[in-house]
Amino acid sequence: MRVYADNAATTRTSRKALDAMLPYFTDVFGNPSSLHTYGQEAKTVLEDARERIANIIGAKPKEIYFTSGGSEADNQAIVTAAINGANKSKKHIISSKFEHHAVLHTLQKLEKQGFEVTLLDVYEDGYVRPEDLEKAIREDTALVTIMFANNEIGTVQPIKKLAEICKEKKVLFHTDAVQAVGHLEINVADLGVDMLSLSAHKFHGPNGIGVLYARNGIMLRNLIEGGAQERGKRAGTENIPAIVGMAVALEEAVSKLDDTKRIAGLRDKLISELTKIPHSKLNGGNGGNGERLPGIANFCFEGIEGESLLLLLDDDGIAASSGSACTSGSLDPSHVLLALGLPHEVAHGSLRISLSDENTEEEVDHIIKCVPKVVEYLRNMSPVWDELQKGEKQYVIQ
Amino acid sequence: MRVYADNAATTRTSRKALDAMLPYFTDVFGNPSSLHTYGQEAKTVLEDARERIANIIGAKPKEIYFTSGGSEADNQAIVTAAINGANKSKKHIISSKFEHHAVLHTLQKLEKQGFEVTLLDVYEDGYVRPEDLEKAIREDTALVTIMFANNEIGTVQPIKKLAEICKEKKVLFHTDAVQAVGHLEINVADLGVDMLSLSAHKFHGPNGIGVLYARNGIMLRNLIEGGAQERGKRAGTENIPAIVGMAVALEEAVSKLDDTKRIAGLRDKLISELTKIPHSKLNGGNGGNGERLPGIANFCFEGIEGESLLLLLDDDGIAASSGSACTSGSLDPSHVLLALGLPHEVAHGSLRISLSDENTEEEVDHIIKCVPKVVEYLRNMSPVWDELQKGEKQYVIQ
Repeated sequence: MRVYADNAATTRTSRKALDAMLPYFTDVFGNPSSLHTYGQEAKTVLEDARERIANIIGAKPKEIYFTSGGSEADNQAIVTAAINGANKSKKHIISSKFEHHAVLHTLQKLEKQGFEVTLLDVYEDGYVRPEDLEKAIREDTALVTIMFANNEIGTVQPIKKLAEICKEKKVLFHTDAVQAVGHLEINVADLGVDMLSLSAHKFHGPNGIGVLYARNGIMLRNLIEGGAQERGKRAGTENIPAIVGMAVALEEAVSKLDDTKRIAGLRDKLISELTKIPHSKLNGGNGGNGERLPGIANFCFEGIEGESLLLLLDDDGIAASSGSACTSGSLDPSHVLLALGLPHEVAHGSLRISLSDENTEEEVDHIIKCVPKVVEYLRNMSPVWDELQKGEKQYVIQ
Repeated sequence: MRVYADNAATTRTSRKALDAMLPYFTDVFGNPSSLHTYGQEAKTVLEDARERIANIIGAKPKEIYFTSGGSEADNQAIVTAAINGANKSKKHIISSKFEHHAVLHTLQKLEKQGFEVTLLDVYEDGYVRPEDLEKAIREDTALVTIMFANNEIGTVQPIKKLAEICKEKKVLFHTDAVQAVGHLEINVADLGVDMLSLSAHKFHGPNGIGVLYARNGIMLRNLIEGGAQERGKRAGTENIPAIVGMAVALEEAVSKLDDTKRIAGLRDKLISELTKIPHSKLNGGNGGNGERLPGIANFCFEGIEGESLLLLLDDDGIAASSGSACTSGSLDPSHVLLALGLPHEVAHGSLRISLSDENTEEEVDHIIKCVPKVVEYLRNMSPVWDELQKGEKQYVIQ
């Protein structure tokens, strides 16, 4: 049995989305900037997709800017706020400790350019506290950027409340909603966010395409200069097949939001079964302080290495992750888990399971069968586990 | 009859490239950064495509950085040279007057940041002169960026000679080869260029994917910050289907380079027939001072508007362009044609025909039949043509 349980890393492009894309590779393949029929046909398709996506997230079509994905959208949102802020001598940015690296690394670059960055605590449960944001905002704050839902542990942040605070204090608010769009109901107008990033390949759309939503009135700054595409704010020939695929995948994802309950049920089954493993824990709060994404659960198992766990699960046909795919290969433990206050050695033993609507109960049962077996196997070989068992070392997870 | 003769704007994705892409949407769809089988399968495909592309252009695989397209690659190359240059107090950049806007607009942004830009003349024939470059290079020159072949008029620049001069003077050399790769034999090692940009959708590959070649030893700077993809120099989940499509399309294009003679023959037929129209001219030199792309020919017809010409040709089933698709919609005449010294009113009456290997002689004959008819029709309605005919105004094109 092969179980793909790494949907937070990337998803399979849906058949419907792919089928919708196909004509735009070979039949209606014109450049939307061209005046002739081929071009104008493509232009019509482009604007239709823009409108469909706008409708779903509660935006106006002209507030939708197509980018090459979530990372680019995050970069452009932050650079926009930084340039516009600096012009008004506002060089302070607020974010959180467990943002995606597309946000954190962009902020680090800005720090080198003289910006000051405050990263809010996310506590053990993985939620930003609105009161912390309130205290952190200063006269010179140019931007607050807080992710909608964390990509490793799945906690959904109180975005509406955070956006309200920013609105009241007249500070720009951006949210990296890459993990949330297509998985939760999201309406930018209701939420009151100024900018939002999304990425198609996280909801069964194609790779290499995303959106930066920027509220009307925000003077976007180019990350990529060149032609006048995307109202002059993002150069490069528009990727029509991918844009169409994204629109179709998003419509499909939103139409399946009812299935969310089933997925959340599978996630909860995983949580209740896998936390029965001794000295294991679920990372991030569950239900207490806030919401969770339906598909993501992240665990720590004391005394083992996440990487070995993944490789052995792979032998059992299970594709999972120890954290973000973007940082795998790195020897450092997840910055997200460290932000939750986990010590290094425990953060190393993490497992992220991320489900989509394609996963079945049978698959989840396979995971529930395999993980305890593999954890036990690895612990039997682990010198650290041995020390813990002998009492030479104290358990962190009781 | 429908004739697509706007291949410099974008090309149809080849059947072979599309077929090669399909499995990577739905079967081998893992994130190459993931440790599990799905991810590692994708990683193998990614590195295989990198190697195949590197082989074709004479690079090492680790010198190939995948980007979202030509514009992004141009931006990153220039920003890289600017940051590295500024660190050594080198804030002078040399380019040419008729570069793509992905280059020119990036340079304009740098000028606002204190860089000085010299744009070399391209003369009436559309070629940069090596001796001009030699004179323009200064102690503080950080970069020379000259396009391989002009996207509007098709003139191929003396890149090897220009790169040699830069090497001698120890100045970084970048070439925007978006219009050239797949249409000419290009070997970065032979040419001695330091950086080169290419885009898949100009050679029957998919949209939204390109390459920045950066010679080993160049410290690339990120345009997009985030995950550690592309050796840490370009964040964002890799677009495997598009990357595979690009590799296949490039191999296909290069395997068909022999067909270039046939395409050049069609181009020459167009040139010899369409310049028979009175008061018309080919833009850019032909064969005298240098090479031309096999597929591009650009004409001016005095006394008419290019836009009306395009719309009427479209009625005849012919898709052509007045210049770059990226600047259509703009009321200004092409900066390329102005750089050749054409007066505004003549530059407005331009027509770019760009052929690919998909075009047939029958199609070219259709163009040759329609263009004179449409030009005559428009001239009969044109008050400017009337003045020219009555001698109230002097012809610019004899």
